[in-house]
Amino acid sequence: MKFVKNDQTAVFALGGLGEIGKNTYGIQFQDEIILVDAGIKFPEDELLGIDYVIPDYTYLVKNQNKIKGLFVTHGHEDHIGGIPYLLREINVPIYAGKLAIGLIKNKLEEHGLLRNAKLNTIQEEDVIKFRKTAVSFFRITHSIPDSYGVVIKTPPGNIVHTGDFKFDFTPVGEPANLAKMAEIGKEGVLCLLSDSTNSEVPGFTMSEQVVGESIQDIFSKTEGRLIFATFASNIDRLQQVVSASVKHNRKIAVFGRSMESNITIGQELGYISAPKNTFIDAGQINRLPAQDVTILCTGSQGEPMAALSRIANGTHRQVQIIPGDTVVFSSSPIPGNNISVSRTINKLSRAGAEVIHGPLSNIHTSGHGSQEEQKLMLRLIQPKYFMPIHGEYRMLKQHTKLAEVCGVNLKHSFIMDNGDVLALGKDNAIIAGKIPSGSIYVDGSGIGDIGNIVLRDRRILSEEGLVIIVVSINMKEFKIASGPDIISRGFVYMRESEDLINEAQKLVASHLTTVMERKTTQWSEIKNEITDTIAPFLYEKTKRKPMVLPIIMEV
Amino acid sequence: MKFVKNDQTAVFALGGLGEIGKNTYGIQFQDEIILVDAGIKFPEDELLGIDYVIPDYTYLVKNQNKIKGLFVTHGHEDHIGGIPYLLREINVPIYAGKLAIGLIKNKLEEHGLLRNAKLNTIQEEDVIKFRKTAVSFFRITHSIPDSYGVVIKTPPGNIVHTGDFKFDFTPVGEPANLAKMAEIGKEGVLCLLSDSTNSEVPGFTMSEQVVGESIQDIFSKTEGRLIFATFASNIDRLQQVVSASVKHNRKIAVFGRSMESNITIGQELGYISAPKNTFIDAGQINRLPAQDVTILCTGSQGEPMAALSRIANGTHRQVQIIPGDTVVFSSSPIPGNNISVSRTINKLSRAGAEVIHGPLSNIHTSGHGSQEEQKLMLRLIQPKYFMPIHGEYRMLKQHTKLAEVCGVNLKHSFIMDNGDVLALGKDNAIIAGKIPSGSIYVDGSGIGDIGNIVLRDRRILSEEGLVIIVVSINMKEFKIASGPDIISRGFVYMRESEDLINEAQKLVASHLTTVMERKTTQWSEIKNEITDTIAPFLYEKTKRKPMVLPIIMEV
Repeated sequence: MKFVKNDQTAVFALGGLGEIGKNTYGIQFQDEIILVDAGIKFPEDELLGIDYVIPDYTYLVKNQNKIKGLFVTHGHEDHIGGIPYLLREINVPIYAGKLAIGLIKNKLEEHGLLRNAKLNTIQEEDVIKFRKTAVSFFRITHSIPDSYGVVIKTPPGNIVHTGDFKFDFTPVGEPANLAKMAEIGKEGVLCLLSDSTNSEVPGFTMSEQVVGESIQDIFSKTEGRLIFATFASNIDRLQQVVSASVKHNRKIAVFGRSMESNITIGQELGYISAPKNTFIDAGQINRLPAQDVTILCTGSQGEPMAALSRIANGTHRQVQIIPGDTVVFSSSPIPGNNISVSRTINKLSRAGAEVIHGPLSNIHTSGHGSQEEQKLMLRLIQPKYFMPIHGEYRMLKQHTKLAEVCGVNLKHSFIMDNGDVLALGKDNAIIAGKIPSGSIYVDGSGIGDIGNIVLRDRRILSEEGLVIIVVSINMKEFKIASGPDIISRGFVYMRESEDLINEAQKLVASHLTTVMERKTTQWSEIKNEITDTIAPFLYEKTKRKPMVLPIIMEV
Repeated sequence: MKFVKNDQTAVFALGGLGEIGKNTYGIQFQDEIILVDAGIKFPEDELLGIDYVIPDYTYLVKNQNKIKGLFVTHGHEDHIGGIPYLLREINVPIYAGKLAIGLIKNKLEEHGLLRNAKLNTIQEEDVIKFRKTAVSFFRITHSIPDSYGVVIKTPPGNIVHTGDFKFDFTPVGEPANLAKMAEIGKEGVLCLLSDSTNSEVPGFTMSEQVVGESIQDIFSKTEGRLIFATFASNIDRLQQVVSASVKHNRKIAVFGRSMESNITIGQELGYISAPKNTFIDAGQINRLPAQDVTILCTGSQGEPMAALSRIANGTHRQVQIIPGDTVVFSSSPIPGNNISVSRTINKLSRAGAEVIHGPLSNIHTSGHGSQEEQKLMLRLIQPKYFMPIHGEYRMLKQHTKLAEVCGVNLKHSFIMDNGDVLALGKDNAIIAGKIPSGSIYVDGSGIGDIGNIVLRDRRILSEEGLVIIVVSINMKEFKIASGPDIISRGFVYMRESEDLINEAQKLVASHLTTVMERKTTQWSEIKNEITDTIAPFLYEKTKRKPMVLPIIMEV
């Protein structure tokens, strides 16, 4: 990083700026790099078939001997999901709270990477010291227990990274450590990196306690089975459902792989407490009266393969909707999932269930603080410089406006892109340069082998389909040996479009006859000519532009 | 319709029940059929490449001699978009208000169907009488002027169809005719078909006047250019923007085909009034000071090809974002469009524009009444039987609950599917049977030639791509004449996966050699064997399941 001076601290992100997801931040002073979080992002619809998106780790790999550790703020996928991919490249020591370590262990085991991983469980009061830098923590509240903000002490000044946060004064677990945050602020903070997710939402985010009251209310009123769908990672929410079930003498059956493993991890680590025999096997559901059963499941986002979607479709092996069932969506749809959630609600409703969902039912609250909470953070930490993180451009920009009203001059706020490097001196700050950043696509077991060409092909195939023209050419005699045959997929229903296909075939055949007379073997040219013959013909007949794929076999 | 008795009126829908869109309703008494609306639906994402969805008109075609007329409640696409497709099958007379007729004319002209169309402009006081039935109208408010509810007089009783409605007491155009609706109710209504779109929304929908005030407010405060994006069909909204522009001495440039044509039609028919020279050409924008320019454009839903998206992308020929620009999204994202809208906002914001959007800015209101308005409709019309229309299952169901609290017994409410036929006698009502209904896909110029097989292929291709194995076989000697060659699209980037492809090729070649020894010509069997060899190999290597397409050429 030549563009950063020796007395400056560099702050950068490989993910999490201008986007929601794959949060990955770096704080570097000279030859010491502190990483904060290593997340994945779930792909948007136009990334056809892609499973996950991870950051480009090039800079970290090149500078691996400088990396002191990866500090994880909390155990959500967009903060820990990248760890297996990062660890495959460089085996950095990992520091995280107890629950996050549990979730990371589980993840690394699945990837066969647990044996060599260097995992360290931190406590709030810990200070991890390196030669020039040191890292300490402060407890914040979020939608998963054991969430921390991180303070990185560097010679030019302290850098504070909030992680994901809200200020829940009546949380299920521990409250945020306001005193410690005030102290950190009082000591002096050079730069604050703060969660921008809800910077466009006015006011204060509803407490988890309100959700708890709604849950209690539903349990009091419901006489049939209760089917409760929520995010598997929202351990506090799970605890609230468990407590309400216990209070109302319901046994709980758990469905969905992530829900099952989080319930197990949560119990093992003491974040979920339940009397013995609270949880039952799927087989026992039908042996109990309806009013004694809670079903806790995944699928609150309408994910097609999740437990709730299969229940709604009538394809779940163990659970069928029966009249009197009440289904609770303890969630709000992530943008892009509205339609699948809505469809699931319709199916459940059609099957005879009462469905409780939506903001009016107070059955879900965000894990991210709204404007007033972001201001509270700014007032507590009192940073000299400000860098909004975790959010799309518009959210980052809005967050700088909130910082401004809390005393941070707009010129001291930096709306950055992934890869931008902020160089921070004692009394100066500037976006000084750029390091490699970008999105790497994970599809199946392939990491980075899908690029824009493959995605472009998938897009064309998905919207217009494919027409293959295959022909064998006798090379000695310059004659068609077989074909041309036309095969299509995703274009038209062939049986009903025989005439169209026959006509296209004749067109290619007659064109090829002319070509053969030229006695040429410029196959790529001939292929182009076939495409140029057939594509306009198909467009004229169907107003569609399928991918045309001519294949010439020489025999 | 054998299952409907001679003294019963049949009510059915070919679209609009259990879904939003393609509204198409039929009211039949003996040999007289009254149609209400003929809409299209815009496809959801999983209908890859499909342009529109229309209903199956089989029943109407079979009974075309009974159809007395198509009565159109208002000029929105989900109520008039199907007309060209219906008219291609049966040339029914069309009755609609002045604006809807203008929009229908425009549409039919594009489809080359205007010349033979039988179009009739109706006034609110008109009564269209047939031998046994008669149709009259009542003015309601919606997000397009000239919207009507329809009363169909039939011997067993009157059927009321609300069309899309809200109760806007301070609309831009004419208010709803409450007196007439009360009279209709007093006369007696056998069955009410009422718009359910917002049945899950409590309270009363905001008036267009509030939007007008917000628009005035924005115009007063803004010093740079104003770029205003909204639904082209919301003529009242366009009028409000025109009025505000005139008041603040701004000239208006219009972008987007549908916006241009609706401004023209609206002006021609007197729904949009503006002094001469209010509208300017694109070329004039840059000759005027920024504070004198309003740009009115399409793209408020983030549609990739619309004017605003091109402006946001920097690819619009005439409009580039300059600092000081203010962009107003006078709309709310339709479910499924959230991500594209959000992306457009980010791009505009990045380019330096102030972006005004979202419910907090009061810059948009729904055209559909909320719960209290639906109750008001129920209290005015006082129907004996009730059939919620226009909406997904959950909305229809919720609407029956609202009807219940307004005195309609739940047993008198009918939640129906498209194709269900409600048989209504003087004192009885029953879902008596079913007529053909379903979704017909329009893709390019093809109507109904895309079915589930083609869509399934498109889906597989879009997520996993395609692997083609092509081989020429010498049939005399049972030898491979050429190949096997492997071609892929949307699967992996071939240049970087040479080893994988070579290995796959060898696998197929060795398998084919064995097959040749069998001297079989069971090609379909051999193809299956090739697939069974290659698919597991590719899955093992990549964890992907591309479509495998073996092609065998005999030479």
